Amino acid sequence: MELEYLAQILVTLVVLFALARVGSAIVSRFGLPGLIGEILIGIAVANIPIGDTTLLEGVLGCVMPEPGVLTDHGNDVYHVIYALAEIGVIFLLFTVGLETRVNDLMKSGKPAFLCALLGVIVPFIFGVIVIMAYDGNMNHAMFLGAAMVATSVGITARIIKDMKLMDTREARIIIAAAVIDDVLGMIVLAIVKGMATSDSLSIGGIILIIAQAAIFVLAIIAICKWVIPRIYDYFEARRKAKMAEGKVPMSVNMLVVAIIVCLAMSALAEIIGLAAIIGAFLAGMMFADHAWEWDLEKKIDSITTFMLSFFFLNVGMQVDLNTLSNGSVLLLAAVVIVLAVIGKYIGCSLGSKMGDKTLDRHSLNIIGFGMVPRGEVGIIVASIGLSSGAMSSELYAVVVLMSVITTLIAPPIISKMFRSKYHDEYKILPEDRV
Amino acid sequence: MELEYLAQILVTLVVLFALARVGSAIVSRFGLPGLIGEILIGIAVANIPIGDTTLLEGVLGCVMPEPGVLTDHGNDVYHVIYALAEIGVIFLLFTVGLETRVNDLMKSGKPAFLCALLGVIVPFIFGVIVIMAYDGNMNHAMFLGAAMVATSVGITARIIKDMKLMDTREARIIIAAAVIDDVLGMIVLAIVKGMATSDSLSIGGIILIIAQAAIFVLAIIAICKWVIPRIYDYFEARRKAKMAEGKVPMSVNMLVVAIIVCLAMSALAEIIGLAAIIGAFLAGMMFADHAWEWDLEKKIDSITTFMLSFFFLNVGMQVDLNTLSNGSVLLLAAVVIVLAVIGKYIGCSLGSKMGDKTLDRHSLNIIGFGMVPRGEVGIIVASIGLSSGAMSSELYAVVVLMSVITTLIAPPIISKMFRSKYHDEYKILPEDRV
Repeated sequence: MELEYLAQILVTLVVLFALARVGSAIVSRFGLPGLIGEILIGIAVANIPIGDTTLLEGVLGCVMPEPGVLTDHGNDVYHVIYALAEIGVIFLLFTVGLETRVNDLMKSGKPAFLCALLGVIVPFIFGVIVIMAYDGNMNHAMFLGAAMVATSVGITARIIKDMKLMDTREARIIIAAAVIDDVLGMIVLAIVKGMATSDSLSIGGIILIIAQAAIFVLAIIAICKWVIPRIYDYFEARRKAKMAEGKVPMSVNMLVVAIIVCLAMSALAEIIGLAAIIGAFLAGMMFADHAWEWDLEKKIDSITTFMLSFFFLNVGMQVDLNTLSNGSVLLLAAVVIVLAVIGKYIGCSLGSKMGDKTLDRHSLNIIGFGMVPRGEVGIIVASIGLSSGAMSSELYAVVVLMSVITTLIAPPIISKMFRSKYHDEYKILPEDRV
Repeated sequence: MELEYLAQILVTLVVLFALARVGSAIVSRFGLPGLIGEILIGIAVANIPIGDTTLLEGVLGCVMPEPGVLTDHGNDVYHVIYALAEIGVIFLLFTVGLETRVNDLMKSGKPAFLCALLGVIVPFIFGVIVIMAYDGNMNHAMFLGAAMVATSVGITARIIKDMKLMDTREARIIIAAAVIDDVLGMIVLAIVKGMATSDSLSIGGIILIIAQAAIFVLAIIAICKWVIPRIYDYFEARRKAKMAEGKVPMSVNMLVVAIIVCLAMSALAEIIGLAAIIGAFLAGMMFADHAWEWDLEKKIDSITTFMLSFFFLNVGMQVDLNTLSNGSVLLLAAVVIVLAVIGKYIGCSLGSKMGDKTLDRHSLNIIGFGMVPRGEVGIIVASIGLSSGAMSSELYAVVVLMSVITTLIAPPIISKMFRSKYHDEYKILPEDRV
């Protein structure tokens, strides 16, 4: 098909978007998160052969960059997909940040904090050990460890919400721990990315990177806690003063302000060697206290509705199924998946128990398995590793597989465990995305 | 500044977006539409020299395509700006379509219809004559004529709304005429683009293109009138039947459906040789009757809040100020601007008078000047002409100037005329965009 430039882009966008949404709707019918359908569609369009080409390349004219070649950005059409995908995931992390209030974070209590902390440390160590044993590459090991850290609370939260168990003790620990897990995960990612992109890896250099990443994240948290409220109060006071004078206060479109801060923080994070999504997440935290007032979540949601599908499509498109035909890679994937489940389960249940001795076996099971699904965050970490050249396409495929499978197996286990503690009559509705 | 790929894109996006919004806020303070500020910022970043380069190219690393070279799409960073701009304007035209109900269109009455029709024909003829006299190039003449046709009712509508004159006779005629003008403008654009991109221009060929464009637009209007209501009724009936059975009906995310239809229609329009925005506009019309029910306008608005600034930035970025240093081009611009005002005024007041003999001089003045602002639509037409190679960069700069100036001069005249008919006490508030 020989098309004009704009026609080519539009055809590619609409075909990929429509396929992704159909994939999402199909898996949602089975009670699974839609993003799994979108990833599978991405894998399919890039891997299923049509003649000697694929739907993606042959029909849609979208040429992916050669894996590992950092200066290759794919063809014109792929640029557009890539940009939409990146902006989409930036806005996604921004909305995650919007739900993360610094004050709640500080009040979330010992069991949640220890649950998150051990839930980060144990899987990270497991991941590093496996890869050091597998290929001995430190960058690979660090990125796989970081990808195993992330918890995607969205999936567990949906189950809890659907079962109307929001006010149980386990649910509260899981939600708080997942939020702290996000923050810790961002720090881990910042450190790992800093180490992968710096040339020399002396002990001093590592300490510098850790300090730099931790300082950046903690500085923003401090800004959220002490600076933002004052800025807000200042403008509120000015607005009220103007209204008291009988003048119409200048209204500011907060969506525009949010977009500017989100993009600026993302750019800043990238420039200082962290990941863009870390900046976006921290930017979201800056608006968390007043997001409801400005209806920001809903508005950003409309933007991600359009863009985010391209991120998960792209996640799938980057998976080269050929790498999984290798027996040792498949074995590695199996080991990683088992350790991802066990590591999170041990870390989180142990941490919660240490924080609150009164939690019984049922509760620890719920918390341990509730933190297992990796969902999008592990994949985001892996794709950063892939695009910065710190991860091989084999390991990338392993992480995608790990994220998809932990996300697939966790929901039935979690809901079964909730039922066995809180008995029955809870019904899970399929997600209503198209 | 040497940055990684993603960092480069993010920096460019946030700098351009923030500048555009500041520009928009500044012109809004003077009661002008924000898009003028965004266009001016676009002109500034691409034209103001910094050393031997510009902010856009030297600092942001965004290299524009060479004008007139159709295979040059600019560099990686520009692709992203271009894609966001195009998708932004597609969604803009979709929302214009959302406000265009086919049934209202058919009921809008003789004065509105004749006002729109003559308001399209007179400026088009004026535009064609001027360019035929200027350089004798038929493509140039047709595109300039088409760019002079468009009315941007947004500006007049804001004045009417701010003055609380929505239920005056003149206001109703202007709004209805502007909607019909949009549809007629789309038909003119379709024809002009068809003629510019076809190789041979026999009389038979021209008739074929006119027939094709008119059939496409009218077919979609017919679908909106007779097919869409049945599809809607069918799904409504099914939904009600399911609920009567006590089942939960599958909920469909209508924003996703709207995005798919909008992109698909845009792609289709491009493929058959019309402009993408025509498809988007017609797609919007398909959803017009139920848009409020699904809150589509607000949701699409969030998307355009992010993307549309890049369109107006890009409009400005494509203006080469050097072309305006030529005396004959400046003279042409002056003639075109005068004819754009006079043509619209004569066409619209004459048309209204023919449709309703009881309209007095004051009313005809209001209607005539109310239709003068060209705003974005004329520019969109010109940018299609530029990118399809049917327009020169001189003529493009002339059209942008014409659109900006008609938009600048019309508001004070319109509000003065409304006041002289409806007396005083109306206050115009500045737009509250950032």
